[in-house]
Amino acid sequence: MALLVQKYGGTSVGNIERIKSVAEKIKATKADGHDVVVVLSAMSGETNRMIALAKEITANPSPREMDVLLTTGEQTTIALLSMALHSLGLDAVSMTGDQIRLKTDSCHSKARILDVETKNIKEHLKLGRVVVVAGFQGRSETNEITTLGRGGSDTSAVAIAAALKADECQIYTDVDGVYTTDPRVEPNARRLDRITFEEMLEMASLGAKVLQIRSVEFAGKYNVPLRVLSSFKDGGGTLICYEENKMESPVISGIAFNRDEARLTLSGVPDKPTVAAQILSPIGDANIDVDMIVQNTLGNGKTDFTFTVHRDDYEQTKELLEKVCVLLHADNVQGNKEIAKVSVVGVGMWNHPGVAKTMFETLGQEGINMHQIATSEIKISVLVDSKYLELAVRALHKAFKLADDPTEEK
Amino acid sequence: MALLVQKYGGTSVGNIERIKSVAEKIKATKADGHDVVVVLSAMSGETNRMIALAKEITANPSPREMDVLLTTGEQTTIALLSMALHSLGLDAVSMTGDQIRLKTDSCHSKARILDVETKNIKEHLKLGRVVVVAGFQGRSETNEITTLGRGGSDTSAVAIAAALKADECQIYTDVDGVYTTDPRVEPNARRLDRITFEEMLEMASLGAKVLQIRSVEFAGKYNVPLRVLSSFKDGGGTLICYEENKMESPVISGIAFNRDEARLTLSGVPDKPTVAAQILSPIGDANIDVDMIVQNTLGNGKTDFTFTVHRDDYEQTKELLEKVCVLLHADNVQGNKEIAKVSVVGVGMWNHPGVAKTMFETLGQEGINMHQIATSEIKISVLVDSKYLELAVRALHKAFKLADDPTEEK
Repeated sequence: MALLVQKYGGTSVGNIERIKSVAEKIKATKADGHDVVVVLSAMSGETNRMIALAKEITANPSPREMDVLLTTGEQTTIALLSMALHSLGLDAVSMTGDQIRLKTDSCHSKARILDVETKNIKEHLKLGRVVVVAGFQGRSETNEITTLGRGGSDTSAVAIAAALKADECQIYTDVDGVYTTDPRVEPNARRLDRITFEEMLEMASLGAKVLQIRSVEFAGKYNVPLRVLSSFKDGGGTLICYEENKMESPVISGIAFNRDEARLTLSGVPDKPTVAAQILSPIGDANIDVDMIVQNTLGNGKTDFTFTVHRDDYEQTKELLEKVCVLLHADNVQGNKEIAKVSVVGVGMWNHPGVAKTMFETLGQEGINMHQIATSEIKISVLVDSKYLELAVRALHKAFKLADDPTEEK
Repeated sequence: MALLVQKYGGTSVGNIERIKSVAEKIKATKADGHDVVVVLSAMSGETNRMIALAKEITANPSPREMDVLLTTGEQTTIALLSMALHSLGLDAVSMTGDQIRLKTDSCHSKARILDVETKNIKEHLKLGRVVVVAGFQGRSETNEITTLGRGGSDTSAVAIAAALKADECQIYTDVDGVYTTDPRVEPNARRLDRITFEEMLEMASLGAKVLQIRSVEFAGKYNVPLRVLSSFKDGGGTLICYEENKMESPVISGIAFNRDEARLTLSGVPDKPTVAAQILSPIGDANIDVDMIVQNTLGNGKTDFTFTVHRDDYEQTKELLEKVCVLLHADNVQGNKEIAKVSVVGVGMWNHPGVAKTMFETLGQEGINMHQIATSEIKISVLVDSKYLELAVRALHKAFKLADDPTEEK
C-alpha cells in the first residue's frame, strides 16, 4: 500500500463528465489499496474567464484581489470532485489551501511555498478518506490569500507530496509522458519510462513543456518521485527520479529544442572585468532573461560579447544594447532572430566523451552550421539557423538511437 | 461621521456594470465622510449555476461540499468590487468569512453565527479603507467552510454591524423600502419611513419578503438600526428600529397578507390534554410548519382542532391527519385550500382597542366572511376565502388611512 499524491490539471477536470472520470480513476487507485491525496486545478477556461471579468473592471487589477478571485476556481473543482467521489461510494473531503495550511510568502500572484502542515490531511487519510486539495493557492503569514503563479498546482502537488513523504507524486495531464523529443518533429520519438530530475529540468527549460520547471526543481530538492501520466489514456507514463545506477543510464535521454531564440553580439568591447555586468545590467533591469552567453577575447584589448534571448525580447534588447554600445565605445551591435537551440540531454554523457563528437559530426554531415555551443554536465546545446531545426532534431535522434527501447535485447 | 455597513444583494452586483455602479455609491458615501463596510452576495444567477453543476454530479450533494462550492460566489464578487473601488481611487480590501473570523456552528447550509471578530476589520477601517466582506459564509470551530442559508448575506451584514456597533446596517435591494402593503394589490400603498422591528417581523413573515426574517430578528436582538434601500433608485428607504416614542406611533403600520394558506380541521376529537400534541407531532416530524391553530371545545367531551399550513403542504398534511383521525377515533378531516390570511400590523394598536372593531366592520361591509381570527400584541390576522384577498387588503388599507402620510398636517 502506497501513499500517492495525484494532481489533475484543468483539462482533466474541464467539465462534469471529466470530473466523473477522474473520480473513477481515483476509485481504481483506492481499490488497489493505496491512500490518495488529490490536488486539482481550476476547470480549463475558468481562470481565463475570471481574468476577463477583472479586465472589464480595470486594466490593472490589484494582485491581492486577483488572488482572491482566481482561487475560487480550484475551490469549485475540489467541491465538485468530492461530490463525484461520494456518488461512487468513496469517503472524500475537500480542503482549501488555507485548510491544509499551505503557508507562502506574501508575494501575490507568484508566491513561494514556505510550509505545508500535514496534520489535517493525515487525520482524514487515517479515516480512509480521499483528501481533495485545491492546488495553486496558499495563505501568507498575515492570512492573505495567495497564488503560486500559473500552473502552480503542480508545485502544490509536489510540496504536499514532500510534506507527506508520499511514495509518488503523479501529475495527470494531457500528454502521456516525457518523450525523447517532440513527436511532432520526430514521429519516431519514444516515451521514456524514466528520466532523472536533472535531465527533466533540461528538457523542460528547453521547451518540452510537460511540467512546470519549478515543480521539478521542488521534487528534486525534496526527492519526491514524480510521474507524468495521461488523464485520458492508460499507461505508466514517465517517472522522474534520481538515477539509481549511473552505469546503466542511457548516454542520451532526449533531444530538447527551442524555436524562439534570438542572438545578439556586441563587438569590440574594451576587455575589462566589469564589462559583462555593464552589458547585462540594463537587460536584467528590463526583466529580460538571458540564456547562452559567450565572451570571445580578440587579443587586441577588445572582446566580442554574445548572448541569446527570447525572440519576443529581441527588439527591446537590441535597443538597450545600442545604448550600451555608445556608453562603452564598442564597435557595433549585430543580431540574428532566425536562431534555434538544439540540445542533447543525458546524465550518462559525463563518462562518454564521444557525445560531443557524435553531435557535431552528425550536424556537419547534414551541412548544418553551429553558431554557438554551450555545454554542461548533462547537456550540449548548439545554436543553428531556425530553418535547420527539424532536420537537426531528427538527425540527432537517429544518431543517438533514441527510437530504440534500451531495455529491449539488441 | 458614521460607521455604516452596506449590504448589496445578488441583483445589485449581477454584472460588471452594476458592480461599477455599486462602487460609485460607496464612493459617494465615503465622500460624505462615513466609514463603510460592504457585505456582498454572489452575482445573481451564480448560486443557481453552481447548484446545477452539483446536480449534474449527484442528486444529493453533501452539504459540506455544497458550502465549499457556493462560497466561491461571494468570494468572486468581493474581489471584483474591490477592484472597482480601486479604479475609482479608493483604498479597499476584500475579506472572506474566514478572514473576518465569522464563527458559526457546524450546521452546513444553514449555520448559525456564533461570533464575529472585529479586530481585522477595524484595522483596515482605521487606515481609511473600505472593507468588502463576503456575506453568507463563515467558518465552524473546526475550520470547516459553512454557509448561513440562502439570503444569509443579510444576516452576515447585521451580525457584522452588531459586532462593530455600526450606526446603521443598510440593506440595498431591488425594492426601495417597506410599504404599507403590496403596491401590486393596492396602488395607493405608501413607503414607510420607519417601522419597528416587531412590526417588520410580522410584515416579513406574512409575505412582505423584503428582508430575511432572521436578519430582522438579529438586528432587533442586538439593536442594530436596519435600513432597506434600493440599489437602483435614490431615496431614504425604510428604517427599521425600536420606536422612540410609543404615543406618536401610527396605530396601524401596514396590511400584510399571505396567499398560500390552507386550512384543515379534525372534527370530533376526544377532548383530552394530550390531544394537541398527538395531532401536531406527525406534522412536525414531516417538517411541515403549522401557523394559526384554534381548538374549539364542543361541550360533549369532544373538540374540533383547526390549523393552517402552507398550501404546498396541504395534501401531505391531510394524509397524516387522516391517520391521526383513525388513531384518535375522531369524526373526520375537513380542509380548504382556497384560503388567504390578511393581517393588520402596528405597534400602536395595543392602546387603541378600536382596531379589531374597525377591521371586522370593514370586512363585514364588503361581505367578506372570516373563517378564523388570531391576535397578538401588534397584529390581528384573519383567514378569508382567497378570492376576497385583494378586496380585503384594499378595504383595510383605506379604512386605516394608510395612504396618508402621518407626518403631514391634516
